[in-house]
Amino acid sequence: MDQVHWLSDEEQRAWRALAGVVMLLPSALDTQLQRDSQLTHFAYTVMAMLSESPTRSARMSELAALANGSQSRLSHLVARLEERGWVRRERTPQDGRGYVAVLTDAGYEKVVESAPGHVGEVRRLVFDALTPEQVARMEEVARAILAKVDEDETC
Amino acid sequence: MDQVHWLSDEEQRAWRALAGVVMLLPSALDTQLQRDSQLTHFAYTVMAMLSESPTRSARMSELAALANGSQSRLSHLVARLEERGWVRRERTPQDGRGYVAVLTDAGYEKVVESAPGHVGEVRRLVFDALTPEQVARMEEVARAILAKVDEDETC
Repeated sequence: MDQVHWLSDEEQRAWRALAGVVMLLPSALDTQLQRDSQLTHFAYTVMAMLSESPTRSARMSELAALANGSQSRLSHLVARLEERGWVRRERTPQDGRGYVAVLTDAGYEKVVESAPGHVGEVRRLVFDALTPEQVARMEEVARAILAKVDEDETC
Repeated sequence: MDQVHWLSDEEQRAWRALAGVVMLLPSALDTQLQRDSQLTHFAYTVMAMLSESPTRSARMSELAALANGSQSRLSHLVARLEERGWVRRERTPQDGRGYVAVLTDAGYEKVVESAPGHVGEVRRLVFDALTPEQVARMEEVARAILAKVDEDETC
């Protein structure tokens, strides 16, 4: 193996803090969503993404990116959302290959009803703690990391 | 319900980026660890934390913080690590109540052997993309968020 380029003290401190956020924030958000809306953060994110599309739909392959490319994790979620009447699967209209997930009216209602509590929690845990300057820096850093992670996925 | 304080456009953009990192980075790190070391990121983090203690041990209650306070998720992990011979549980020496998890010699070896690949991946996905200035800003932002999340946990 090549010589390991270990983290410097500064990098190590920064990494501990980021790893803490990455490990703890999703379950903190899950806690509010499960308590108030009986949704996981992953389920909410998928439904919110569909709600923002003009057709209230997206290809399963696009949504899989939210599950870090895991088709099986996404399919499992979408099946559960279908059972609850919030999403349905349809053949892709253009080419008949593949599937799109479509948010039903009940699913749209569920997003509308869950959004205030979730946004309030995001504001409380994230934005209340940050200055506008820090918000801008956070976006910059998060985008730089995402670009690296996405690079891998499209390889 | 009180009037919702929705996110501004800047906050929304920043939140999408951070939520992307929070959703995608753990599984990106899992991918490398599972492939090269047959460990999840959560398992690695717990074992790495034990390896850094002078006694190579920690109270189960302290480790549970890594699982966002979920004792059951931590117990499940520690049971699997025990089966593999990397960790053992012992009664708390001081007061005999509660348990500590102790990293075995084999567990320590496993951390030492897994660290270079994991650190290389953290460097590639996170630090290669950032300037030293951005690393410092990231630590600041992540600490501010963690402080909020921790506040909840200790309530």
